[in-house]
Amino acid sequence: MEPIIVSGKEVSNKIKDEIAQEVELIKSKGGKVPHLAAVLVGDDGASVTYVNGKVKACERVGFHSTLVKLEPTITEEELLAEVEKLNQNDEIDGFIVQSPLPKHIDEQKITEAIDPKKDVDGFHPMSLGKMMLGLPCFLPATPFGITEMLRHYDIPTEGKHCVVMGRSHIVGSPMSVLMVRNAYPGNCTVTVVHSRTQNLKEITRQADILIVAIGKPQFVTSDMVKEGATVIDVGIHRIADDSKKSGFRLLGDVKFDEVAPKCAYISPVPGGVGPMTIASLLKNTLLAVKLKN
Amino acid sequence: MEPIIVSGKEVSNKIKDEIAQEVELIKSKGGKVPHLAAVLVGDDGASVTYVNGKVKACERVGFHSTLVKLEPTITEEELLAEVEKLNQNDEIDGFIVQSPLPKHIDEQKITEAIDPKKDVDGFHPMSLGKMMLGLPCFLPATPFGITEMLRHYDIPTEGKHCVVMGRSHIVGSPMSVLMVRNAYPGNCTVTVVHSRTQNLKEITRQADILIVAIGKPQFVTSDMVKEGATVIDVGIHRIADDSKKSGFRLLGDVKFDEVAPKCAYISPVPGGVGPMTIASLLKNTLLAVKLKN
Repeated sequence: MEPIIVSGKEVSNKIKDEIAQEVELIKSKGGKVPHLAAVLVGDDGASVTYVNGKVKACERVGFHSTLVKLEPTITEEELLAEVEKLNQNDEIDGFIVQSPLPKHIDEQKITEAIDPKKDVDGFHPMSLGKMMLGLPCFLPATPFGITEMLRHYDIPTEGKHCVVMGRSHIVGSPMSVLMVRNAYPGNCTVTVVHSRTQNLKEITRQADILIVAIGKPQFVTSDMVKEGATVIDVGIHRIADDSKKSGFRLLGDVKFDEVAPKCAYISPVPGGVGPMTIASLLKNTLLAVKLKN
Repeated sequence: MEPIIVSGKEVSNKIKDEIAQEVELIKSKGGKVPHLAAVLVGDDGASVTYVNGKVKACERVGFHSTLVKLEPTITEEELLAEVEKLNQNDEIDGFIVQSPLPKHIDEQKITEAIDPKKDVDGFHPMSLGKMMLGLPCFLPATPFGITEMLRHYDIPTEGKHCVVMGRSHIVGSPMSVLMVRNAYPGNCTVTVVHSRTQNLKEITRQADILIVAIGKPQFVTSDMVKEGATVIDVGIHRIADDSKKSGFRLLGDVKFDEVAPKCAYISPVPGGVGPMTIASLLKNTLLAVKLKN
């Protein structure tokens, strides 16, 4: 049977449309238009692309946005002062500091300096702690995006066995918390596997829902997946490919071609989880405005 | 084969002795003697017993302690003011507000009002978030106590399958985070099961380490446990028993008599996890002093 393709592109577009409508409504009522700021330190190519994408998405949905560009030579103290300025600026509802930062800056220190009320990346310990407690909070973009994908396709989760591959702070670990909690999506039996796991295949084959975030291209093969499973691929890797105009192609953590025929649902790379992260950021920014009131 | 009994009584006594030695050392150097405060609202019998136990433990290890007794009619605003007084009091290194609080008080609001630097119960979102990020922090007493038990008996965890039964905010959920992280104890493949889990037995039988915190007396039977497993029982239930002078006996979530013969290690009830919670609180209070410097 052909699997249903879980299209992050489609879901993220729908979410952006919904947000744009909500912004129109806010405007018509004379309310505060959400305003996202992004701090970019230096001019790393990928970071510039990401930040520009975020600014463009703000324009599309009608948010205000501010891009704060800073020299890569900025000191930690100076960057902390910039963060504090954004914390104090009532016009800014939420902001992000684009990662990675230059090596002389302690990234965790910067994250913790952000006012939790404006932490739309959801990386502040306060946000993660509230998530663990099931309180309203900013969810980290990737896990949040995945729950939105599951919701959009109405994929059943209650009582299902969800196996999360990877235990990173920004994907695997929060993902496991979200899938176990008493909510939809959620109420799964959740297993977290990682580099130290023994009998990996034996466990992944139990998964009704397999969420793959291990950062190894094409790692998941068809023998690791149960018939009828839902597979969500978080990986994204640039692989050199002379046959492409760009000189590369994008691959996920999953061998899509051989895994897809076994699946009920599967997310592709590109066009799967990737586009969801900006949609999550926009949703968090809108939430920041709502939680203020 | 006889299983090894994981005695929380023994481990907690050892920890208290170590802390007492450290306090002696601090005193000999003219340092700050750790000072724990406990807030008790009303006179619920169990709460009085718990709080007195905490104060007594402070005395034993040489900590200073303060018991703040408040009337059950206290308003939320007044209690928040008491919390703020303790936040501001430099003499107090850490404090707890004994749960449960009267119904007219929002317990979560009180928890969040505690200065995270003094949150020795580890229930503040900031503490849980830091735990998720693997940062130095106050761990919630029960999961912290269980990791100390595993450490004391040198029970191998890396690559083992740990099944956590229960997903509460103060036990199951943080326990799963601790067992998965890259540390000892930790580096387990971790599965969280709960009331919505299907094929429960099939999953618990995979556990090398089974941590049971579901609050159902005698729920875990021998057919749910793998030969050679380590079983940690968090449950504690008072069951009426006329043959006892007290009129009751204590039972755990595990049918000890039939499960024990299959185990490599098993914790009893009473004398298992129970005594560890106060030891954790003392460790957190000592940590509060250390993190201050």
